[in-house]
Amino acid sequence: MCRWLAYSGSPILLEELIFKPEHSLIDQSLAARVTATTTNADGFGIGWYGGRSFPGLYRDVRPAWNDSNLRNLAAQIESALFLAHVRSATVPPVQQSNCHPFRYGHWLFMHNGSIQQFSELRRELLMAVAPHLFPSIQGNTDSELMFYLALTFGMEVDPVAGVEKMVDFIETAASKRGIINPVEMTICTSDGHSLYAFRYRSQGRPPSLFHSTTLDALEDLHPSYGGFEQGALAVVSEPLDGLTDHWREIPKSTVAIVTGGQVTTQPFTPRPLATA
Amino acid sequence: MCRWLAYSGSPILLEELIFKPEHSLIDQSLAARVTATTTNADGFGIGWYGGRSFPGLYRDVRPAWNDSNLRNLAAQIESALFLAHVRSATVPPVQQSNCHPFRYGHWLFMHNGSIQQFSELRRELLMAVAPHLFPSIQGNTDSELMFYLALTFGMEVDPVAGVEKMVDFIETAASKRGIINPVEMTICTSDGHSLYAFRYRSQGRPPSLFHSTTLDALEDLHPSYGGFEQGALAVVSEPLDGLTDHWREIPKSTVAIVTGGQVTTQPFTPRPLATA
Amino acid sequence: MCRWLAYSGSPILLEELIFKPEHSLIDQSLAARVTATTTNADGFGIGWYGGRSFPGLYRDVRPAWNDSNLRNLAAQIESALFLAHVRSATVPPVQQSNCHPFRYGHWLFMHNGSIQQFSELRRELLMAVAPHLFPSIQGNTDSELMFYLALTFGMEVDPVAGVEKMVDFIETAASKRGIINPVEMTICTSDGHSLYAFRYRSQGRPPSLFHSTTLDALEDLHPSYGGFEQGALAVVSEPLDGLTDHWREIPKSTVAIVTGGQVTTQPFTPRPLATA
Amino acid sequence: MCRWLAYSGSPILLEELIFKPEHSLIDQSLAARVTATTTNADGFGIGWYGGRSFPGLYRDVRPAWNDSNLRNLAAQIESALFLAHVRSATVPPVQQSNCHPFRYGHWLFMHNGSIQQFSELRRELLMAVAPHLFPSIQGNTDSELMFYLALTFGMEVDPVAGVEKMVDFIETAASKRGIINPVEMTICTSDGHSLYAFRYRSQGRPPSLFHSTTLDALEDLHPSYGGFEQGALAVVSEPLDGLTDHWREIPKSTVAIVTGGQVTTQPFTPRPLATA
Repeated sequence: MCRWLAYSGSPILLEELIFKPEHSLIDQSLAARVTATTTNADGFGIGWYGGRSFPGLYRDVRPAWNDSNLRNLAAQIESALFLAHVRSATVPPVQQSNCHPFRYGHWLFMHNGSIQQFSELRRELLMAVAPHLFPSIQGNTDSELMFYLALTFGMEVDPVAGVEKMVDFIETAASKRGIINPVEMTICTSDGHSLYAFRYRSQGRPPSLFHSTTLDALEDLHPSYGGFEQGALAVVSEPLDGLTDHWREIPKSTVAIVTGGQVTTQPFTPRPLATA
Repeated sequence: MCRWLAYSGSPILLEELIFKPEHSLIDQSLAARVTATTTNADGFGIGWYGGRSFPGLYRDVRPAWNDSNLRNLAAQIESALFLAHVRSATVPPVQQSNCHPFRYGHWLFMHNGSIQQFSELRRELLMAVAPHLFPSIQGNTDSELMFYLALTFGMEVDPVAGVEKMVDFIETAASKRGIINPVEMTICTSDGHSLYAFRYRSQGRPPSLFHSTTLDALEDLHPSYGGFEQGALAVVSEPLDGLTDHWREIPKSTVAIVTGGQVTTQPFTPRPLATA
Repeated sequence: MCRWLAYSGSPILLEELIFKPEHSLIDQSLAARVTATTTNADGFGIGWYGGRSFPGLYRDVRPAWNDSNLRNLAAQIESALFLAHVRSATVPPVQQSNCHPFRYGHWLFMHNGSIQQFSELRRELLMAVAPHLFPSIQGNTDSELMFYLALTFGMEVDPVAGVEKMVDFIETAASKRGIINPVEMTICTSDGHSLYAFRYRSQGRPPSLFHSTTLDALEDLHPSYGGFEQGALAVVSEPLDGLTDHWREIPKSTVAIVTGGQVTTQPFTPRPLATA
Repeated sequence: MCRWLAYSGSPILLEELIFKPEHSLIDQSLAARVTATTTNADGFGIGWYGGRSFPGLYRDVRPAWNDSNLRNLAAQIESALFLAHVRSATVPPVQQSNCHPFRYGHWLFMHNGSIQQFSELRRELLMAVAPHLFPSIQGNTDSELMFYLALTFGMEVDPVAGVEKMVDFIETAASKRGIINPVEMTICTSDGHSLYAFRYRSQGRPPSLFHSTTLDALEDLHPSYGGFEQGALAVVSEPLDGLTDHWREIPKSTVAIVTGGQVTTQPFTPRPLATA
C-alpha cells in the first residue's frame, strides 16, 4: 500500500526525515503501522528541488532499508522541498520506471493507493492521455497513469482542478464498466514551489495522511539538529514518531496546499472535464 | 542494434551456443562484428522450452558478459529449443520488461532492429492491440509491441501471416504520417515446436541473419562435445565462428521455419489485415 | 535471521516447495513466524543438483517475493536435491556474493544465524582458511567464512567432522577474546548425494529447524501434485504449513543426515582440530 | 582497464565533465581510445565533496551509459572536488563493493590498472592491513586492498609516502614469489582538500594519465557554460576532447598534487616501510 512523505520549508538534509526519526520512512518500509501492508519493499524513490529548473530524481527497486546508495545520497543532499516514497506493489513488475515519484518537466508526483480492476481500465485511461504527453510514460502503473491524466487535464495550470478532473474521469470510466469504489488515494504532487497533498476515496476510508502541526514537531524529531528555521512542514502517510499531537490528520476529500512550510486546506471534489 | 541466436534440435546445454563458441553471443555482447553497434550491453535474456507447457524465461539488465547467474544457468539448463538475445537499447529505459525474449502463453519472441520514429507511432499501435492481450504488455519497446500486434493479428494460428499483417499494419500507419522506411527487423518467434525467423526491411538492407548449414557446423564449434545428434540447427544474427561456409545467409524478405533442426524458407511479404 | 529449506527425494519442481505451500519460503521472506526477524528480504538464493558434476546456483539481492526471474526458474527447474535461502542481513552489504547458498566445487552451503562480534574475529578466521581455498571467497559474511573453514578442516572428506572442527575453532578464537556465546546456527550443506543439516548454539536455544515426518507431509502440501514418490523429505527453518504433526523438530546439538529422502540423526559436538 | 577523472576548482555540476564533453567519461565507458580495453561497463562510481565532513558516494554495477540515476544525479550535484570512475573488471565479481571510488572516513580512492597474479598475493596483502581498518574492507578487489594498505602505511598523514610504501610493499611481496612487473597503476586519492594523482608501473609503460593545461581547456569543453572561475583543473585517464594541447601527459613515476585547481608534480618512488 506504500508510504510516503513530503517536506517544505528551510533546506534540510533528506536524511533528517527519511532516515533519522524513530519511525522514519525507512522504518516504515520495513514495518509500517497505520496500514494493512506493513512491508513496503518493492522499490523506493526520492525527488528533490535544488538549484536547477527541474527536480532531481533517484529511484531503485531495492528495499529502501538496504540500499547504501540511498543512505549516502540522503546524507549529502539538502533541499527545501522534497518527496520520498517506499512502494508496496499492486501492479507488477517491480522496476525503476514503476517507482515513485514520477517526474515530468518540473513536476513530481507520487501516490499511495490503487485503482480497482485497473487492468480493465488501463487501455481506456491510456488513450485519454494527451498525445504530446504519451511518449513520457515509461512504466505500467496506475499511479503514473493518474499523473499523466492529471497533466492532460491541466494540472500544470491548476493542480487541484487537474487532479479533480482526473479522479472524475476514472470514476466515470469505472462506472460504465460496473466497477465500484474505483479510486483509493493519497497523492502528493509539486511544481517546486508548493506541495499539493490529496486524500480521497470514491467510497469509504482513504489511506491515512497527516501533516506536522508545529515547527516544534519537526525539531523534536531530532533535538540535536538545530537547522529548522521558520516555516518547515512535513506531510506523511503516517507519523514519523507515532500518533502524537505533533501530527494532524488531513480529512478525507481534502487537499492540503503547502507553500514555504505553511499549510492551507480546502475540500477536494471530483470534477467533470467540462467544467472550467 | 542487438544480437540474437535461436536453436532447434537435440537437447543441448544453453552454454554450448551462448558462451562457448569463439564468437559466442556473449562475445557479441561485448564486440559484435556484423553491425554498427558493436556493444550490446543493455540487458539480455534467454527463453527455453522444457517439460512444462510454457517456456522458461530469464532476463536481466546487466551486460551479459558479467552476469554470473546467466553463466550458471546456461551451464545447467538443457533444451531442444531455445532463444537468446543481447540488447542494444533504442528505446529507454533499460529494464527487465524491455529485455527480449518476450513471452505470452507458450510463445516467445525477440527482435533486432527498430521502428522509425516509434514515439510518434506508439500510441496508435498500442490501441490496435486486442483488449484481452493489452494487460500483458509490461514494457515500452517497439519490439514488445510488434509481438502483441502479431498476436492480435492471429500469430498463434498462423505465425507467418500474423507477422506479415503486423508489418503491413505498421507500414500503413507510418505511411499516413509520412514516416519513411519504418520497419527494420530480424525477428525470431516460437511456439515450442518450431522456430520462425524473419528477415525484412521496408526499404534497403535489413540486419544480418544466418542459419547453420550442416550438423558439422555446430559440432565443429566444440569438437569435445559429442552431444549433437541428427537434427540440430542454429539461427543467428551473426556467425558464431566468423563468416565461413558453416553459415548460410537468410535472404531479405524471407522467413525461415525450423522444426526439429530442419529448415525451410519461404518469401515474406507484408500482408493487409483484410486478407485471410 | 534468514529462513531456508532443503529437499532430498524424487525430482520435483523447485516451485513446489519454494512458492506453492501455504507458508512457503517466499511467504517466509515476507512474514516469517518462528523467528524474531519476520522480514527476510536482503537477497535470496537457490542451489540445485542436476545432470552436471557441479550444482546450479542462482542468487540475487532482490526480495524473493518480487523477483520474477526466481519465479520463472523455480517453475522450470526440477531437481532431486536442492537448497533455497532467503536472507536477513547481519553483515552488510547486500550483494550477490553475500547471498546463500555458497558453492565450492560440488558442495553447497547455507546458514541461518550469526557469529557474535564477527568483525573482531573475521581477520583471524580468514587467516585460518587454507591458501588454496582463499581465492574462492568472494563476499564478507560470517556464513561464507564458516563454509571455507569447514572445507579447510576436511568437510569434503568428513562433513560432520569438518563442521564440528569449524565450530570449535570459532569458539576457541572467541573465548580468547572474551566473546561469549559466539556461534548461533542452523547450517545445511550438501555434496549432491546427501544433505547435512546442523542445529547448534554455543549456549542457549539455537534457531529453529524441522524436517518433514512422512511422505504424506509433503504430498499434503499440494494435493493436486502427484509427483512425490517414495523417498522425499524436506528440512526447513520453519514448517511450510504451520506447526503440525507433519514436522518434527530437530533437537539442538544435532546433525540430521538425509540421503534419498531418508533421514538419520546423530549428536553434534564441536571438535578440536587435533582430533581425527 | 578502467577510466577515471577527477576535478578540483570552482564548484561545477558533475555532468559538466562526466556527461557533456565530446569524449566524456560516459563515452569512454562505451568506447575508450587510449587503452586496450575499450569497453568499461562493469560498474561505475562517483564520489564528491560538499558541505558534510565526509564525501558523498554513489556506485552501481550497471554500465554508466544506461544508468538514468547517474544521469539525474550528475545533473543536480555540484561540487568543487569530485572523482568519477568507470570499471572494466579484472577481479570478479561485478558488485557495488567492487566499484570505485572507495571511501574511508573523508578519503576517496580510485585506481586504474592491476596487481599481477593478485590471487596469489591477496592473502598476504590482506594480512598486512591494520586490524582497525580491516573491518572496512567490503569487496575483494586489488584496488580496494591497495587503498587499505596505503591507509595502513600512513596515507592519512602523508598521502604520497603512504602510497609509496604501499607500492614497495606489494613489489617486495611479489618479488618473493617470483612475480614480475607486479604493479600497474594510475591512482587518484583525495582528502577533500587536494587531489593526489599517481602514475606508475613496476616496469614499462603505465596506463595513461593527463591533466588539463589551462582554464580555457575546461571552458572550451562547453562554451555555453560560463561557470568556470579561476582555478579549475581536471585529471583524466584520457582527454575529454581528444589528444589536444588542452591536455598535458603526467609522466610515469610521478605524482601530481592538485589544490584549488592548481597543480604541482613531484617524482614518485616506491619507499620501504622502514623509512620515515
